[in-house]
Amino acid sequence: MWTTDHDLAIIEPRIAELVRELTDAPATGEVAGALRPVMGQVIDQAVSSSEGGKRLRALLTLAAFDALRTDFPGSSVSGTDDDARRSMVDLACAIEVFQTAALVHDDIIDESDLRRGKPSAHRALEQAVHSGVIGRGLGLMLGDILATACIEIARRASRGLANTDAIDEAFLTMQREVEIGQVLDLGVEMTPLDDPDALADASLNVFRWKTASYTTIAPLLFAFLAAGYGPDEARGHALAIGRPLGVAFQLADDLLDVIGSSRNTGKPVGGDIREGKRTVLLADALGAARTDERGELIAMFSADRRDETQVARAIELFGSTGAIDRSRERIHALWLASREAIAELGLDERERRLAEACARFIPEQLR
Amino acid sequence: MWTTDHDLAIIEPRIAELVRELTDAPATGEVAGALRPVMGQVIDQAVSSSEGGKRLRALLTLAAFDALRTDFPGSSVSGTDDDARRSMVDLACAIEVFQTAALVHDDIIDESDLRRGKPSAHRALEQAVHSGVIGRGLGLMLGDILATACIEIARRASRGLANTDAIDEAFLTMQREVEIGQVLDLGVEMTPLDDPDALADASLNVFRWKTASYTTIAPLLFAFLAAGYGPDEARGHALAIGRPLGVAFQLADDLLDVIGSSRNTGKPVGGDIREGKRTVLLADALGAARTDERGELIAMFSADRRDETQVARAIELFGSTGAIDRSRERIHALWLASREAIAELGLDERERRLAEACARFIPEQLR
Repeated sequence: MWTTDHDLAIIEPRIAELVRELTDAPATGEVAGALRPVMGQVIDQAVSSSEGGKRLRALLTLAAFDALRTDFPGSSVSGTDDDARRSMVDLACAIEVFQTAALVHDDIIDESDLRRGKPSAHRALEQAVHSGVIGRGLGLMLGDILATACIEIARRASRGLANTDAIDEAFLTMQREVEIGQVLDLGVEMTPLDDPDALADASLNVFRWKTASYTTIAPLLFAFLAAGYGPDEARGHALAIGRPLGVAFQLADDLLDVIGSSRNTGKPVGGDIREGKRTVLLADALGAARTDERGELIAMFSADRRDETQVARAIELFGSTGAIDRSRERIHALWLASREAIAELGLDERERRLAEACARFIPEQLR
Repeated sequence: MWTTDHDLAIIEPRIAELVRELTDAPATGEVAGALRPVMGQVIDQAVSSSEGGKRLRALLTLAAFDALRTDFPGSSVSGTDDDARRSMVDLACAIEVFQTAALVHDDIIDESDLRRGKPSAHRALEQAVHSGVIGRGLGLMLGDILATACIEIARRASRGLANTDAIDEAFLTMQREVEIGQVLDLGVEMTPLDDPDALADASLNVFRWKTASYTTIAPLLFAFLAAGYGPDEARGHALAIGRPLGVAFQLADDLLDVIGSSRNTGKPVGGDIREGKRTVLLADALGAARTDERGELIAMFSADRRDETQVARAIELFGSTGAIDRSRERIHALWLASREAIAELGLDERERRLAEACARFIPEQLR
């Protein structure tokens, strides 16, 4: 049986190979000798920044394709390695490269020093060239280069798949949706805290654009298209399954940040509260809190920083107001909606495979 | 006769229309009410930042297409308005939108307050949202959104043209080349001043990637491809004509910054020197200067800032060392190379039309 580990072993080196090729200058011209070193530093950083992801999106793309395609009837139980699947691997890599591009810019906006346990791209480049201004500029350009590179990777991959043109369009739509999601995410930070319903709506809306778009909707859409579904039908299924799944994934991520997890999320508990992030949990807590508690939360999240006592107090209020339970209910309901949309496909024995691939986005205790 | 003014009157509103459509959220989902204002601010800024360009690149794309296409024999003298030309207008607009995307990020890297006489995008957004951090983040994302939007504009346009796939690939290659050019440009700022030949090589190399790529090579390549030339032949011609032309264009721009111009460049004389920019003029001056003069220039350009007396002294040295004459010679030789490559096409009466379109990139007194 074609396992996740098998796919990971293919994806990981392929990402490095594609990134190294497509962040370098094209063969249509030479790079001057004096400038090769800086070009080399940027390419090395592109490869380094591309390492260490969990590859959830690439794995969903491939698993969904295996489950949906009918040209290789056995493909849902034993992986095939034909031309179409190799193209699909590259398309899956393109999503991961896009994520890296987005994270590089995200870290510049948030002034983050670390990413995946290593210095963030712009910080690493600042150190490499011994200049804050130039290093930060190189980091910004590295994000741009990766964002262009992933489109070229996807374009080449789509040539070996059904619905070539619809896949190209879907990749660009995905990229645009995430970029708009980042704008909306910055907008949430300016949303007043005195209207909890509007804040919850806004936060859930950001999850749809910033997270579900490329985490679940696009991987599923690529799989449906490459498996030969018509563009409208493919989009309908991908949204019906992927939108609730992606929103539930982000809600679960935010919830685990507060209640901790058996999985190692790599972040200390309460990190979002410490940063003052406006989350659905906060909105739900504000909506259900007594007047004095609401005032306490608003004061806490309007301040420039929050100490450990305040973080603990916020977590306590998230629990006592029922916000944590509300998030559990939201996640459960969204997961059910996603499951139902999968069941409606009428896939018979391949349904289990697709459901398993989707289930990986929601920790078992939250499904 | 189809004039430049006629094309400008078509291009300008079309850019605004395309930018407004493709910076907004796709129809596949809603934007929450609380987040519509920030989305509106970003879209308005996208349109505003897209205004006011000279549209040299779009005009070359269209003029070259009119000169090269043979399906409408009269198209070289009187413009046609068939489907192919409308697609070509959109492809021409896509280059302009890409330039805006690049300038938005450039202004963040350079911390520029102004662009085309208005506040730069990130500064305008900082003012609109009353927050430096969030405004700068929105500016960075606006650059990302425009960079994605222009690819979608080009992708839709290429569907109505010959060599669809080669045009899509060429657009992505252009974008990658400019992004790499920006990296190399930052690299030049770190190039030591004690090796003038290496500095001149590096600066000329940056011009090829950062300027010629999208200013002349890509517009010509799109025109050759859309006119039906085979991809390899099209690329060969576009490089032969566009590389020297684009490098000459940037050399002329840098020269006019020092010697002034009858054209209003919109910048005070000596701006590059004031900013300490490492130019080919500086490299040529360093290479030809006496030892004491070279020391003077190195000290001047190693300092954090230069006062007006130093700017005047640098201009004096650029003249007395022969660097200004050297730039004139370089520009003239590159223009001749470009002209020869045009002549080799064997276009008969259409050659004049193409040569005129190319000549617009070099001020008459420097040709």
